[in-house]
Amino acid sequence: MSHPVDNAVSAVRTYIEQHRAAFLDDLVAWLRIPSVSAQPDHAQDVRRSAEWLASKLEETGFGTAEVWPTAGAPAVFAEWLSEDPEAPTVLVYGHHDVQPAAREDGWSSDPFEPVVRDNRLYARGAADDKGQVFFHTLGVRAHLAATGRTTPAVNLKLLIEGEEESGSPHFRALVEERADRLGADAVIVSDTGMWSEDTPTVCTGMRGLAECEIRFHGPDQDIHSGSFGGAVPNPATAIARLVAALHDEHARVTVPGFYDGVVELTDEERALFAELPFDERRWLDTAKSRAAHGEAGHTTLERVWARPTAEVNGIGGGYQGPGSKTIIPSSAMVKLSFRLVAGQDPDHVEKAVRAWAAGQVPEGIRCEIDFAPATRPCLTPLDHPALRSVARAMGLAFGKPVRYTREGGSGPAADLQEVLGTPVLFLGISVPSDGWHAPDEKVELDLLLKGVETAAHLWGDLGEHWRHAP
Amino acid sequence: MSHPVDNAVSAVRTYIEQHRAAFLDDLVAWLRIPSVSAQPDHAQDVRRSAEWLASKLEETGFGTAEVWPTAGAPAVFAEWLSEDPEAPTVLVYGHHDVQPAAREDGWSSDPFEPVVRDNRLYARGAADDKGQVFFHTLGVRAHLAATGRTTPAVNLKLLIEGEEESGSPHFRALVEERADRLGADAVIVSDTGMWSEDTPTVCTGMRGLAECEIRFHGPDQDIHSGSFGGAVPNPATAIARLVAALHDEHARVTVPGFYDGVVELTDEERALFAELPFDERRWLDTAKSRAAHGEAGHTTLERVWARPTAEVNGIGGGYQGPGSKTIIPSSAMVKLSFRLVAGQDPDHVEKAVRAWAAGQVPEGIRCEIDFAPATRPCLTPLDHPALRSVARAMGLAFGKPVRYTREGGSGPAADLQEVLGTPVLFLGISVPSDGWHAPDEKVELDLLLKGVETAAHLWGDLGEHWRHAP
Ligand SMILES: [Zn+2]
Ligand SMILES: [Zn+2]
Repeated sequence: MSHPVDNAVSAVRTYIEQHRAAFLDDLVAWLRIPSVSAQPDHAQDVRRSAEWLASKLEETGFGTAEVWPTAGAPAVFAEWLSEDPEAPTVLVYGHHDVQPAAREDGWSSDPFEPVVRDNRLYARGAADDKGQVFFHTLGVRAHLAATGRTTPAVNLKLLIEGEEESGSPHFRALVEERADRLGADAVIVSDTGMWSEDTPTVCTGMRGLAECEIRFHGPDQDIHSGSFGGAVPNPATAIARLVAALHDEHARVTVPGFYDGVVELTDEERALFAELPFDERRWLDTAKSRAAHGEAGHTTLERVWARPTAEVNGIGGGYQGPGSKTIIPSSAMVKLSFRLVAGQDPDHVEKAVRAWAAGQVPEGIRCEIDFAPATRPCLTPLDHPALRSVARAMGLAFGKPVRYTREGGSGPAADLQEVLGTPVLFLGISVPSDGWHAPDEKVELDLLLKGVETAAHLWGDLGEHWRHAP
Repeated sequence: MSHPVDNAVSAVRTYIEQHRAAFLDDLVAWLRIPSVSAQPDHAQDVRRSAEWLASKLEETGFGTAEVWPTAGAPAVFAEWLSEDPEAPTVLVYGHHDVQPAAREDGWSSDPFEPVVRDNRLYARGAADDKGQVFFHTLGVRAHLAATGRTTPAVNLKLLIEGEEESGSPHFRALVEERADRLGADAVIVSDTGMWSEDTPTVCTGMRGLAECEIRFHGPDQDIHSGSFGGAVPNPATAIARLVAALHDEHARVTVPGFYDGVVELTDEERALFAELPFDERRWLDTAKSRAAHGEAGHTTLERVWARPTAEVNGIGGGYQGPGSKTIIPSSAMVKLSFRLVAGQDPDHVEKAVRAWAAGQVPEGIRCEIDFAPATRPCLTPLDHPALRSVARAMGLAFGKPVRYTREGGSGPAADLQEVLGTPVLFLGISVPSDGWHAPDEKVELDLLLKGVETAAHLWGDLGEHWRHAP
């Protein structure tokens, strides 16, 4: 007599094997639509991509599949309700738009004419994000087939936006407007990756982001550095001194209150990070950098995943052309971005930075600061029931225990967390070599099908372990 | 019986009064030639200006008056030898090219159609520098007429360059090539100004200038600040820290060895500076600045005239456009200029800055430094016999004792000092309101004629007090 889990795994695999060809044919058809949201002449293609997806989701079995217009490119919303009244509700987030791509950028084949080479599917959007959206279509059907159900074990919702590669300018407004339709117990972001082919991982959080520009105004116009040099405040010198004061000798941010509320890594989390097969030399190659440098007392992975930062994205003032110009510049500016981690409040950080910066302004200099809208950090605790389900489902698909990572970047998922008040989880099967935003983007077909398998197991596991009180 | 000095003063005045109309007509004719050296379509005008001046100097009585070609615009050289074998030799420096000017820049009348309003002559070049060159033509003739001599009491040489407003790119080569013709006991720079109409002053020195660009290279390309922020060195942060380290809390330059050799102000010089009717609020208006700031223990005038400085002329790195871009920039740079004072050696300063900068480069950052050719400082001691002559001559012309200033800027006169090994003195009658390089440039006619008077007295005084051993 075989073990029930083994039975479930092989039932899912069998179903996927039977339907993989049609699944890949459909994905290839979708990838052929050049839904480049950043290029206005592809606006019609982005709309076509949304309509194609909505119709495919309907065909898959979703009871509802709608194209949602926005002030920009449309999103797709779909819903497949469970007949189980105690079923939890899950909202899958992804995007159907893609980065620009042209053969002459260095592609080995047309980016919108998908081809399979060496069991890899090459096309713009193969991994980011059409492939990782599309595995949910076969995933939910494999879930039904393997369990003999007619409706999923969760209320399954999909929100697939069309402007992620353009900075999601209308996403938050859309989520606010449609919040009643989007309500869920958990958001599953299907737009990230895992450590490597050999090391399946679950991402447990992303950093937040606060951005500002600080401008120092000195003389009303550029003045002659011979006539006045050494006797009036120079705004370029002053802005440099502000930047230099931003970090102490341990590379910690000096802004008073900046670390308020920071959720420190537990010993367990640090141990989990340390388990990952991290090769700093290879990481530096990826970073195109020659040294690791950051907050004392933390590893590189801790620094990029779990520590807040302050980085200069741009600095400028005075004469920057060839040769020289003997001026004291009229003004200078710096663009700073602060990555935030769980427990940090962007409003509090903004206040803290403003107060700190005000204290860095020398006499005779006028300071202006503008903050852009912030993105909150998100973090799912390791013991969250939905996270445990994701880890178990992925473990079944890959046949080995998964490990845990985080994302150093920030994303629109934070808007879902904030507007809906829902925890955000991440399920991704892309690997670093997939070439997001680069020529020859691809997805590994074996991993793509592991994504299908993971989704198939996930809905059953969630429905079983995370029931609503009747 | 009248006093002989009074006689000399009135003899000079009488001669000037008799010839002032013709003198001004000539100057106006010269000012009509738009000798803008920075604009290639005026190259012919610059040549015409040189030829006009050479011919006028010949007519004035100079035995030699030559147009000297350069790789750019031509200079004019003239010489009027003394019959006195013990006469010292003086080389007057000025320039016949002018800054660009156009009516639409805000001029009240055509910049190349000179007009007199309220006893002021308005035209591009009226003060900078044609007016201050031209007063030497009437000055030497007044000297002869008032003393009854047929040759000047000094061997008088003039070198009037044609590219000063374009940065004198070929001046040093010209001086090196013609050094045998230019030999002199003193250089008189006739291209500066004085404190104010009420306060005639003699400038005793200019600061030197060393300029460099320092580039910090980090990642091979801009990298994502989400993925890598907080874990690799940021070249923009590093260049800001270098700039911040350039001055200590007393606004002194921290570069070890920077102050080596600096000739400190004597108590006498500080007292002379302090005697000037300096109004810091008005000076700040001129500087378009809101605060005085500089090296502790020094007044504003000491800071701009007699102290070496380090100023940021430009800083740049990363994204400087509108909005934000979450990158760690690949590189960042700063343009620094160091004003130097007497006793400082530009080569030593360059070595000191290079060594200091090398110590500011964090691990993982690559540093490049380029220095431009430097300009040496020049300073004439207060007790130099030629400086005493200038002060006495100006005192006679203005009817009051003169005071002493310096120039914070740097100029091609330093090349004369260095190549010829000759002390440099300054004789200028322009005032700050003359609007050098600005619309409505003018010269005060009364002051212009005081310049003529000063020159007339100066040659006699120098010939009397600074004789060569026979
Ligand atoms: Zn994506
Ligand atoms: Zn000039």
